Amino acid sequence: MAHLGSQLVKILVTGAAGMIGRKLTARLMNEGTGELILHDIVSAGAGSIVSDFSMPGEAEKLVAARPDLIFHLAAIVSGEAEADFDKGYRINLDGTRRLFDAIRKVGGDYKPRVVFASSIAVFGAPFPDAIGDEFVNAPLTSYGTQKTICELLLSDYSRKGFFDGIGLRLPTICVRPGKPNLAASGFFSGIIREPLAGQEAVLPVPETVRHWFASPRAAIGFLVHAAKLDTAQLGARRNLSMPGISATVGEQIEALRRVAGERVTKLIRRQPDATIMRIVDGWPRNFDARRGAALGFRADASFDDIIRFHLEDERIPAPRAGSA
Amino acid sequence: MAHLGSQLVKILVTGAAGMIGRKLTARLMNEGTGELILHDIVSAGAGSIVSDFSMPGEAEKLVAARPDLIFHLAAIVSGEAEADFDKGYRINLDGTRRLFDAIRKVGGDYKPRVVFASSIAVFGAPFPDAIGDEFVNAPLTSYGTQKTICELLLSDYSRKGFFDGIGLRLPTICVRPGKPNLAASGFFSGIIREPLAGQEAVLPVPETVRHWFASPRAAIGFLVHAAKLDTAQLGARRNLSMPGISATVGEQIEALRRVAGERVTKLIRRQPDATIMRIVDGWPRNFDARRGAALGFRADASFDDIIRFHLEDERIPAPRAGSA
Repeated sequence: MAHLGSQLVKILVTGAAGMIGRKLTARLMNEGTGELILHDIVSAGAGSIVSDFSMPGEAEKLVAARPDLIFHLAAIVSGEAEADFDKGYRINLDGTRRLFDAIRKVGGDYKPRVVFASSIAVFGAPFPDAIGDEFVNAPLTSYGTQKTICELLLSDYSRKGFFDGIGLRLPTICVRPGKPNLAASGFFSGIIREPLAGQEAVLPVPETVRHWFASPRAAIGFLVHAAKLDTAQLGARRNLSMPGISATVGEQIEALRRVAGERVTKLIRRQPDATIMRIVDGWPRNFDARRGAALGFRADASFDDIIRFHLEDERIPAPRAGSA
Repeated sequence: MAHLGSQLVKILVTGAAGMIGRKLTARLMNEGTGELILHDIVSAGAGSIVSDFSMPGEAEKLVAARPDLIFHLAAIVSGEAEADFDKGYRINLDGTRRLFDAIRKVGGDYKPRVVFASSIAVFGAPFPDAIGDEFVNAPLTSYGTQKTICELLLSDYSRKGFFDGIGLRLPTICVRPGKPNLAASGFFSGIIREPLAGQEAVLPVPETVRHWFASPRAAIGFLVHAAKLDTAQLGARRNLSMPGISATVGEQIEALRRVAGERVTKLIRRQPDATIMRIVDGWPRNFDARRGAALGFRADASFDDIIRFHLEDERIPAPRAGSA
């Protein structure tokens, strides 16, 4: 990472077995940027550390090797945090705080770069047309509350000089490969991913629902850029809304039609779900993420690109467009 | 309290030995609104409970009697929270969270009104001319960070139905009676209070410094109004900036001159303090607190009134104005 000079560095990745964690790890290995310490609650591959970092003493083990750079991705997702109040606070808040405190307690001249994966769930309705960089954090879920609290801790610990933190509010990642997870936002990927795999997908909300997206490729780009950034540019406000693509579900489906053809879009089945609709109703739709853009974070160019990147990165044979 | 109907209610006050706690208690006793449970780390009078509510098990004892209404005022002040990082987080964050969790764990139909004393320190520079109700929470102190986190917890616990919370961002209380405390904002009161008592006061910042004020009388009014408010009006955003008086130090001194005469103002000694100036530089100066005002919270009418209320409420003989 450029900010650390050209020598090899130690890099800790929490949540390394997750989708973003695996893609980030692959890129870091590919670039040969340093020695990787991979951590998750399940194995993230040979040599990875498996533990619950919200348990006393575990976070200390993770920072004992004094990693120069920490990507803190570990969290339980929104649906699970909403369903299990105690677990959400234990993992997403207490776990993060234990990690931050473990770094602080190393002390001396140890001051790693900490890149924290936050979320647009730190914002809650009602919204302006586009959420600016000075809009209030009024989350409407426990997950969003926990992410906001971690952002605040990251700012305060950075201000006190315990580490050099930067928080990135990732758009909803789309197209998320693999199996659906417990995130209430899962259908945004499902309605693209399953039809492209020849399978039916359930759409639980109306096509007018607007949301904010980034491809996994763009998200990995954000994280790597954050690791290299001169944080002196951030001042005291160390948490940034990332640029993204604002699209309605209808626009998602139009893009799918353009990229993969009419027949693929027929695999989307409308099945309204009031619980998911209520959660999604409180979510951001559009941002004016000019600070992030000015700092060099780059969004996807279009939702069509988001679908194309999915086909390329997951090595899915491109369907013939127009084969309705 | 009106929202609880006309029967007598049980009221818990944390931080009851503090300045606001004592004035609030006096008013509640005067109005005969209910049975008071007073708590602090030091005695708040005969029959009060003395404990450290950040210690495991203590918060549970406070809510065991199932108070209908809880005024949560307990906190360590900004200067101390900045000087002692661990203590600040232990009392201001963990203590509040333990209290909130103790309420949650009573369960059943127990759902008290919780009135939380937050602070304008939840905001940090750079600011617009007046801070609106949708401005970002980007605190620049550990105290402000802790208060913001408690606001977020209050919203989430209320959303989940564990209690019926409302957070009030109190302006800097002025004129604070009695001895100076460790708050970095202490001089805003000191330059009024000490000269009125015939004593010298130190002014550590330039007269151009602008800040946001409420009298103790107005602050007690906010708390009592919050206890009575129909919280259905709040929607999901349960933390409110309180209306106040925006004044520069120079305007404070002018008001002192008008109320108490030129000679009194001569007791203010300029002695710049870079540490205090740096802290104060990050603090709010002015608000557009229209939500709070629309909900019936009432500020003082002028800084002159703030000084007059101090003389009345503390039974200080009014100096003869113009006796320079």
